[in-house]
Amino acid sequence: MILLRHGESVWNLENRFTGWTDVDLSANGVEEARLAGKILKNEGYQFDKAYTSVLKRAIRTLWIVEEMMDLVWLPVEKRWELNERHYGNLQGLNKAEMAKQYGAELVHQWRRGYGIEPPPLDNSDPRHPRFDRRYAGLAPEALPASESLKKTLKRVIPCWKQHILPDIAAGKELIIVAHGNSLRALYKHLEGLSDQEVMELNIPTGIPLVFELDSAFRPTAHYYLADSEKSQVVIGDTAH
Amino acid sequence: MILLRHGESVWNLENRFTGWTDVDLSANGVEEARLAGKILKNEGYQFDKAYTSVLKRAIRTLWIVEEMMDLVWLPVEKRWELNERHYGNLQGLNKAEMAKQYGAELVHQWRRGYGIEPPPLDNSDPRHPRFDRRYAGLAPEALPASESLKKTLKRVIPCWKQHILPDIAAGKELIIVAHGNSLRALYKHLEGLSDQEVMELNIPTGIPLVFELDSAFRPTAHYYLADSEKSQVVIGDTAH
Repeated sequence: MILLRHGESVWNLENRFTGWTDVDLSANGVEEARLAGKILKNEGYQFDKAYTSVLKRAIRTLWIVEEMMDLVWLPVEKRWELNERHYGNLQGLNKAEMAKQYGAELVHQWRRGYGIEPPPLDNSDPRHPRFDRRYAGLAPEALPASESLKKTLKRVIPCWKQHILPDIAAGKELIIVAHGNSLRALYKHLEGLSDQEVMELNIPTGIPLVFELDSAFRPTAHYYLADSEKSQVVIGDTAH
Repeated sequence: MILLRHGESVWNLENRFTGWTDVDLSANGVEEARLAGKILKNEGYQFDKAYTSVLKRAIRTLWIVEEMMDLVWLPVEKRWELNERHYGNLQGLNKAEMAKQYGAELVHQWRRGYGIEPPPLDNSDPRHPRFDRRYAGLAPEALPASESLKKTLKRVIPCWKQHILPDIAAGKELIIVAHGNSLRALYKHLEGLSDQEVMELNIPTGIPLVFELDSAFRPTAHYYLADSEKSQVVIGDTAH
C-alpha cells in the first residue's frame, strides 16, 4: 500500500490556511506529482484501486500519477473522510498575519495541538461545507465546521476500517492520495503513535510512502521512495 | 441525463480501427472536450455522478469536462461495459488498407452490420483483453475477442439496468462519457430503435446529448447542446 500526500498547492505557496478550501496545485505541485508517478513507475508498482479525497489538489495529484503510470483506467474512490483537517474560521487567512493578530503561541496550538480546534465556521458562513454540493448526501451532523487532529481521526479511521481494509483483505494493491493531516491520522493508527508522537510527525508532499502489511494488516515496514536518479533527494522517515 | 461521446482520438486521425485499444485523445479531441465542458457549464448543468468506460479517451474527456465545470470532486464509476465495441482482429489496422485487402463491401459490413462480428482475436494474441490487468477481475467468458453492435448491447443494457438506472431512480443527475457504439447501443434501447434504424444513427464526438426522462425513466425528449457562441455549429439529431 502506498500513501501519497498531494503536491504543493497555490495556498501552501501563499502561506494561507487551506483545510477544506478547494485550491489547486501550484506549478511546483504538478512537478512533484509527476516525479512521484515516475518513481512509482520506475520501481514497478502496480495498483488495482485508488482512494483519494474530494479536494482537487489530491485528485489532480492522483490523475497525474495515473497518467505517468499509464493507469488512467484505475478505479478511484473519492471519499470526503480523507479530506484535509477542517481549519474552521482560519481557512483562507494568512498564517503570518494570524500569528501577529492572535499571537504565535495560539496559532501554533491551532496548527499543532492534537486536541485543539481552531475557531469554527459560523453555520451561515458561505464557506461552511453544508453549502457545497459535494457534501449534499451527508448528514448535517457529519459535516465539521472546524477540526482538531483528534477529531480528524474520528472520520479517517472508520473510513480505513469500513472501506479501505476490505479492499486490502480482497487482495487489492492500493494507492491512497490524501493530505498532511488525514495521512498523519492514518499513520498514527497504523503505527500506534501516541498523541505526543503524532505531533512530531510530518509527511512530506509528493514522496510515495510504502506501507508493507502482514496478514493481519499490521505494518511490518514503512519507507519513502526517493528518486534514485536524483541522489541528492534523500528523504528520511520524519516520524518520532 | 447527458450522454457524451469522447473527442477525436489519435487513431481516429490515423483512420485505424480502435475498439478496445487504449489510445489517447488527439489535440483536436482535447479541444472538443473543453468545448463540451464549456457548453455544459454555460448552460448551468450540474451533476452528482459520472459514468465512463475504462478507456482513456473517454476518461480523459470526462476529466477535461470536470475541470471546465469545476467538478473534479465528482464520483466517477468506470465500467468496462461502456467500452467501445470490440473490433477483434481489425484493431490497429488501417480502414482504407483493409478495404483494399478484403473489399469495401466486407469492411463496410464489419463496420455497419448490426449482427456482424469482425474476425476475432486469437486467444493467445497479446491484444486479447485477458492479458490486460484492468479486466483481471472479470470472468474469462465475459471478455470479448470481437463484437457486433448487437453483442455490444448485451453488456451495455445490463449495465444501464443494474448500475445507471438505480442512480437515476435515486435522483442523481448523471453524465455518461463513452464511445460511438456503446452510446448507440444505449440510444437504441432508450428510443426503441429497430436494428435497421440504429445502423443509420451516428452520434457526433464532443457534443453533449441531453436525454430528458419521465418518472418511468422513459425519454420524453432528447437534443444536442451546441455552442451558442459559435452559431455556425448547428447540430441536428442524426437519428432515423
